[in-house]
Amino acid sequence: MSLLESLQWRYATKKYNPAKKVSQEDIDKIVEAARLAPTSSGLQQFRVLVVSNQDIKNKLSPTVLNPEVMVDCSHVLVFAAWDRYTEERIDQIYARTTDERDLPRGRFDSYTDKIKGLYLPETAEENFVHTARQSYIGFAMAIAMAAELKIDSTPAEGFDSALVDEVLDLKAKGLKSVTLLYLGYRDAEGDWLASMKKVRNPTEEFAIEYK
Amino acid sequence: MSLLESLQWRYATKKYNPAKKVSQEDIDKIVEAARLAPTSSGLQQFRVLVVSNQDIKNKLSPTVLNPEVMVDCSHVLVFAAWDRYTEERIDQIYARTTDERDLPRGRFDSYTDKIKGLYLPETAEENFVHTARQSYIGFAMAIAMAAELKIDSTPAEGFDSALVDEVLDLKAKGLKSVTLLYLGYRDAEGDWLASMKKVRNPTEEFAIEYK
Repeated sequence: MSLLESLQWRYATKKYNPAKKVSQEDIDKIVEAARLAPTSSGLQQFRVLVVSNQDIKNKLSPTVLNPEVMVDCSHVLVFAAWDRYTEERIDQIYARTTDERDLPRGRFDSYTDKIKGLYLPETAEENFVHTARQSYIGFAMAIAMAAELKIDSTPAEGFDSALVDEVLDLKAKGLKSVTLLYLGYRDAEGDWLASMKKVRNPTEEFAIEYK
Repeated sequence: MSLLESLQWRYATKKYNPAKKVSQEDIDKIVEAARLAPTSSGLQQFRVLVVSNQDIKNKLSPTVLNPEVMVDCSHVLVFAAWDRYTEERIDQIYARTTDERDLPRGRFDSYTDKIKGLYLPETAEENFVHTARQSYIGFAMAIAMAAELKIDSTPAEGFDSALVDEVLDLKAKGLKSVTLLYLGYRDAEGDWLASMKKVRNPTEEFAIEYK
């Protein structure tokens, strides 16, 4: 299925069939799409927490706007971004990049010095505005990948991030939760949105051309 | 090409062949992928400015980190988000949604009241943190769509957004620029990055499973 067909097919599922689980093979592909997502300076400022454990889903569910959707879905992906930039984080990525490309370490020093000069003087809150944005690129790739596999998904931003961070012990990992993606298979009869038309701004309002 | 193959194929192109232009048909598909992207509460809090005009590209280029990449590429997509939430913006979207779904207007009032209660008391800056994040979902879909079409692209966050907003008169449109995507065809011989290995965090570091 092409990407445009996948995007037409998908919708934010509101009711899952709790008996149908997504296979590990498909979860791996969805995570892989997020892993391959481009990020600013190639830093991959986010991680994906893959929650299929029902006890943990139950514990997370009171923190979200639509708890029954989370409880019934097969897997919850938590996209969590770096809580701040550090010299070590940046250096570690570029050490790996040079090693894997058979380049001398330090090959990108003038570039990493520039980004350190940009991010390190900022507050953690300012850093997180930027790292959180990067999560959305991976989040979108995961949404697209799930649709390509005909797996239903629900992007979910309405949740108490402090509580999610606590349940998943994200502070100790230097991460803060940004957004959630539920995965599973729809219960089409129980889902009021399943048969509704997809509505978007018309192209002539959405895009402005400067030719 | 599957999404995973597309993501493996793409890279952040550093040198374009200025003679090769992307067709209007392909640009339309890339814009369509961004238009179909899901957004928080379905509000589509962003727009895409499609710049192929060389004079405007030249005018924008001093504001970016890599001006020659912008000048040589075929099209620049500017992803620009709502500068703030307003009651009118939210009501207009939901009026369209109910009309297109043959539902009575007001069908979603309790929901829109809730999101208005959430966003309208915030500052414009706080609103923009949220609207800008939505842009990244469309941005990612455009990156994926370009790759599926074997069109090269360069995600570019390093630019002076105030200057871009001024050149494109975005303030009058209630928008602020968030991120850029250059599109075109690579000049592989002139591009140091074209032959380099793609480097990502290994899956076992990137994803954490809670089974």
